[in-house]
Amino acid sequence: MCEKCQTKVLQATDSNYGSFERAVIERRALKPDDVAIDIKYCGICHSDIHQVDNDFGSGVYPMVPGHEITGIVSAIGDQVTGFKVGDRVGVGCFVDSCGACEYCLRGEEQFCSQGVVVVFNSKDYDGNLTYGGYSQSIVVKDRFVIHVPESLDLAEASPLLCAGITTYAPMKRWNVGPGKKVAIIGMGGLGHIAVQFAHALGAAVTVLGHSESKKNEAQQFGADAYYLTSDPETFKQLKGQFDFILNTVAVSLDVDLYLSLLTVNGAMVYVGLATEAQTFHVGSLFGNQATITASNVGGIPMTQEMINFAAEKNVLPRIEMITVDQVSVAYERVLNSDVKYRFVIDMETL
Amino acid sequence: MCEKCQTKVLQATDSNYGSFERAVIERRALKPDDVAIDIKYCGICHSDIHQVDNDFGSGVYPMVPGHEITGIVSAIGDQVTGFKVGDRVGVGCFVDSCGACEYCLRGEEQFCSQGVVVVFNSKDYDGNLTYGGYSQSIVVKDRFVIHVPESLDLAEASPLLCAGITTYAPMKRWNVGPGKKVAIIGMGGLGHIAVQFAHALGAAVTVLGHSESKKNEAQQFGADAYYLTSDPETFKQLKGQFDFILNTVAVSLDVDLYLSLLTVNGAMVYVGLATEAQTFHVGSLFGNQATITASNVGGIPMTQEMINFAAEKNVLPRIEMITVDQVSVAYERVLNSDVKYRFVIDMETL
Repeated sequence: MCEKCQTKVLQATDSNYGSFERAVIERRALKPDDVAIDIKYCGICHSDIHQVDNDFGSGVYPMVPGHEITGIVSAIGDQVTGFKVGDRVGVGCFVDSCGACEYCLRGEEQFCSQGVVVVFNSKDYDGNLTYGGYSQSIVVKDRFVIHVPESLDLAEASPLLCAGITTYAPMKRWNVGPGKKVAIIGMGGLGHIAVQFAHALGAAVTVLGHSESKKNEAQQFGADAYYLTSDPETFKQLKGQFDFILNTVAVSLDVDLYLSLLTVNGAMVYVGLATEAQTFHVGSLFGNQATITASNVGGIPMTQEMINFAAEKNVLPRIEMITVDQVSVAYERVLNSDVKYRFVIDMETL
Repeated sequence: MCEKCQTKVLQATDSNYGSFERAVIERRALKPDDVAIDIKYCGICHSDIHQVDNDFGSGVYPMVPGHEITGIVSAIGDQVTGFKVGDRVGVGCFVDSCGACEYCLRGEEQFCSQGVVVVFNSKDYDGNLTYGGYSQSIVVKDRFVIHVPESLDLAEASPLLCAGITTYAPMKRWNVGPGKKVAIIGMGGLGHIAVQFAHALGAAVTVLGHSESKKNEAQQFGADAYYLTSDPETFKQLKGQFDFILNTVAVSLDVDLYLSLLTVNGAMVYVGLATEAQTFHVGSLFGNQATITASNVGGIPMTQEMINFAAEKNVLPRIEMITVDQVSVAYERVLNSDVKYRFVIDMETL
């Protein structure tokens, strides 16, 4: 075990995702509560692309993206009791938080009053830039490391660390379960996992998609019905049907139209980030006391709960494995919705 | 007791609220579960004006408005056990529902699957038009009659039947209580009651108003703070502060700006019906998982709970009593926000 470990990474040199290059960085020396991880796989999430592309204007380069990390524990700090060398683990969006505020205390670290430390393109509490999972190894505070159940393949598990918790958390918040009717808007990287979770939680699941071609796969994922959003009849037939609508797409919607699909006290939850202004009429909220809200990933305890549940219920992201050299092409394909359903980078190829 | 009772009313003859006139109509003969009520007072609500003015295109004339009714029981049907002649009672927005659907069974008659029967300008299940509270008397199914506690003045109590339940119900749904921070947007007919309820429920209450002149009265109603929405500093100072924002005004807002005032999982609830399209950015929902929703009055059991709570906690609408001949002028004044805070018609003047 080195004092400070050098590790190979794939880094974006500027806000142009053709510009990835291999490099070497140093990870911090193990603190007493740190876990060092040999990274085996890292998923590609649309938000990696937003960051690399500097869509939010906060990009610092070189940048090492990646927040759907799975691997094997290679070393532990003196005080670590929850992990041992050889454990199968995952790391998601966060790697530190204050640990003391009301949000941290109730396990919702994403809302930490001091500001959660994101796994990449973020400053840690020492002021150092964080580098993510497109890397050979990473060092993470034990509290932010997730156990990956034995039954899950490490490659298939990696998208659960972001796409999984992003879709599972709002279902828990809004009590998706037996007797509930759920609609999932879009069946891409997020949506195909959402369908599986909603089905595994016992709800009746309808996919609202834009492509007839995904109908069969929707059924394989557990959907009870598939409707085309391009067909106006869809909105007549499904009026007032759903307790919960998860919007996984990042494009503008006719909000009033989707609200009309909700039953009394139903919720439409955004997990896809459309950047344009959305429009609704207050009158569309009154008849059924509809809710419009969003969900922001999920805390560490729920992430562990989610991955255990995924293992128990065989909620498996469908992945396309790529090499490090294919990342730029994969980014283009994600932007063109040309992936079934999630890219995972094999870090052996670094 | 007559077979069918003739009763004096004030009716709107067309969609022009200068055109009120006295008239006589027949109320139905008492059914076994009916309660006949001598109406003493009826509040004026903005939604009376919407109906009279035919803003929703569904006006049938002549129309007898009024859904904030208080009075004294004058007769009861054979099977009525919950009321006796002489009881102090109230009637709000609804006078019938199917009684058998999931919503009726859980006391949320406003969402009745068969369609709730509204107290005026609505068809009852026999196909007859309903006539509201600008009237000397009314006959209502017992299930839809509310007991008015002895300690409440019947005139002051009347606005509780709509404005009261409209503001109380969303506070119960969103768990307003001790430790919660509440903002009330607007302190008019709805807002001045909302402030009192939020305070009585134990929350810390801030009024977001547009007039410095209401600051003192806000404090009398129990507000802990008063901020002007015209001052940009307000939105900086109050960022992330509120668990619950009740929007009682019927004008367009900068939704993103108000969402920024919510804490994690906070809710902004509309009870004022702005008719123009509202816009928001999905990004404004993510950081704090903010909710946008509306509240649609409340069911009969909660209306009884609300009025009992109002009596216990001295939640008292502040009213301006008018005669029947002043209704048209009062409508104009409501539209000009020139009322402190709710008009109540003295039905002795009919």
